[in-house]
Amino acid sequence: MKLGKVTLLSAGPGALDLLTLRAARVLSEADVLLVDDLANPEIATLAPQARVIAVGKRGGCRSTPQAFIERLMCRLARRGAHVVRVKGGDALMFGRAGEEMRALRLAGVPVDIVNGVSAAFAAAAGLGMSLTHRDHCAGVTFVTAHRQDGMAPNWTALAATGTTLAIYMGVQRVEGLCATLLAHLDAATPAAAVQWAGTAHERRLLTTLGCLAQDVRAGDFASPAILLVGGAVGEAVLASSVDAIAIAA
Amino acid sequence: MKLGKVTLLSAGPGALDLLTLRAARVLSEADVLLVDDLANPEIATLAPQARVIAVGKRGGCRSTPQAFIERLMCRLARRGAHVVRVKGGDALMFGRAGEEMRALRLAGVPVDIVNGVSAAFAAAAGLGMSLTHRDHCAGVTFVTAHRQDGMAPNWTALAATGTTLAIYMGVQRVEGLCATLLAHLDAATPAAAVQWAGTAHERRLLTTLGCLAQDVRAGDFASPAILLVGGAVGEAVLASSVDAIAIAA
Repeated sequence: MKLGKVTLLSAGPGALDLLTLRAARVLSEADVLLVDDLANPEIATLAPQARVIAVGKRGGCRSTPQAFIERLMCRLARRGAHVVRVKGGDALMFGRAGEEMRALRLAGVPVDIVNGVSAAFAAAAGLGMSLTHRDHCAGVTFVTAHRQDGMAPNWTALAATGTTLAIYMGVQRVEGLCATLLAHLDAATPAAAVQWAGTAHERRLLTTLGCLAQDVRAGDFASPAILLVGGAVGEAVLASSVDAIAIAA
Repeated sequence: MKLGKVTLLSAGPGALDLLTLRAARVLSEADVLLVDDLANPEIATLAPQARVIAVGKRGGCRSTPQAFIERLMCRLARRGAHVVRVKGGDALMFGRAGEEMRALRLAGVPVDIVNGVSAAFAAAAGLGMSLTHRDHCAGVTFVTAHRQDGMAPNWTALAATGTTLAIYMGVQRVEGLCATLLAHLDAATPAAAVQWAGTAHERRLLTTLGCLAQDVRAGDFASPAILLVGGAVGEAVLASSVDAIAIAA
């Protein structure tokens, strides 16, 4: 039997037209889609020939074990299928793509990758700000507040970099995270939260690090959301479409 | 006269099919394109109605002053044109989008943003690695070695974050950059260079931090290139298509 393959495909932040042209073509040719919770389920409309399997892993909810997903991909590809593993944002950021590629290589299954737009870029677009405005910083750090080993990231070092911080999966622990950052950064440091970045439901909040935790709670921001902290965030503007509270710095 | 607008549009790393569906639609409706050197000039084929103006700014070469570009955008938009400012990678990373948005807002010109794929994501895809493999790191930092004020980024803090480092515009000063990082990171730390990431000419190099500078020179890697440093790079594999030297860690 002909060996199939697996494509790790980036679904982008949500809106279907933020998929790449390459992603749309690959979807149209797919035999099977394995779709993350964080990807827009309407993506299946771009893959009319494909069997669609939902394999969500949302914190705290019923979820599909990672090992099961990896075995399923290998089994389907070995039977000759072109399996498209659909991941929210860019597949190569915070999506376990590293573990899946390792498993596929060990199984001898060919794997390729289609890049996309990670949520923090959409969040910055919604806020009308550059992630790396050169008046403020030398770059941007994308970090998850939720580590496998239960350890926190090195917030001291992260604050000292002077880069814009784009924090994924941070809303649930925003109080502790802000308290730690406030030990190193000024309370007046511009900060923002964007929920459902890049979707029709996008909500934005522009504030300061000192007020971020209380404003996130007051505005009822929940996962999935991106937190942004740093001088570059001070260039953001809240467009009229914003439904969240806005507090002047 | 009706006021036009400016769209800051992300051209992605080079291959036209790495544009988003939204970018392709916006290009098809554009009146004028202002195109960066770092964007693939073939993008003009997607904008058949548009007048195309090249406004490159490549280090060391003849270039278009930033203030001229900003004035031109404002003038064209005030005459009613839909101006599409095409930027390589994602417009919100290392592309002066922050300055351009500020100028456009001051001039009362509406501006919107279309996201895309930044070069480091394409570099990681070419190397078959996640930027944030959770066995190795809590995130990834995108930083430019080339700062406006001539200052170097805080490499000490960057190294201490434990994040994967994705260094833009670093090839020209790779020796100094590696020497500084080696004061904080082990020489055996996995490292890579990818030139023309995401294009048909992509070239990759997989090595260690201790050997990165000499291998970049020996392999004749030049701008535009991405340098990647960190444990997650150790998961990379050099596919058979790679034409660069490969040195085992």
